[in-house]
Amino acid sequence: MAGAGPHVAPAPPFAPPYWAVIFTSTLTDDSGGYAQTAEAMVALAERQPGYLGHDSARDANGLGVTVSYWRDEASIRAWKRVADHAAAQAAGQRRWYAAYTTHVAQVTRAYAKAEPTTRAS
Amino acid sequence: MAGAGPHVAPAPPFAPPYWAVIFTSTLTDDSGGYAQTAEAMVALAERQPGYLGHDSARDANGLGVTVSYWRDEASIRAWKRVADHAAAQAAGQRRWYAAYTTHVAQVTRAYAKAEPTTRAS
Repeated sequence: MAGAGPHVAPAPPFAPPYWAVIFTSTLTDDSGGYAQTAEAMVALAERQPGYLGHDSARDANGLGVTVSYWRDEASIRAWKRVADHAAAQAAGQRRWYAAYTTHVAQVTRAYAKAEPTTRAS
Repeated sequence: MAGAGPHVAPAPPFAPPYWAVIFTSTLTDDSGGYAQTAEAMVALAERQPGYLGHDSARDANGLGVTVSYWRDEASIRAWKRVADHAAAQAAGQRRWYAAYTTHVAQVTRAYAKAEPTTRAS
């Protein structure tokens, strides 16, 4: 990951079936403390049993799309308990989001292009 | 959607079960024509049978996360045929993506917060 280009890469496909939690949001103007808490939540997720990876982007227009990947649904439920507890401790959490939607889904297939396309013919 | 704030909102939850196609990507430095084609692809998707909605964000760090929502898996397969054809016609398509991953998933539950939190107690 070092060298030229951004230090980001899409999470790879995992072995199906696995689960995805799709979290989309817009923020209010009152997002003090949000960035630090979001980082702490990612660090917390990464230590959870069943965590596989995540992708997260927030557009210049304000829309954020975060997808976390999990081995099974039980891992998601356990993570939700931990996350709800951590969020309750973060005093600002309730005022950060103007709107959000969560979709919980079972991934049945996945594929990737990992390398720049080279001329094959 | 008019007035203060960005003119974006997360797609709402739909009635489960429905399907999600999660497409994550990074771009190469050679992305001429990408934005116009991406817009055209969205317009094309919106006219497809079974299309429910989509969320898309590209982060300042370069990672893009796009999720499209579909009524059933047959709609996704039909869309893939249309999209592959359109992409083949877009000459630059093969060189735009440095890397990408696609996850196809069945959404089993979804929920939302649509309004800013007001003080309830």
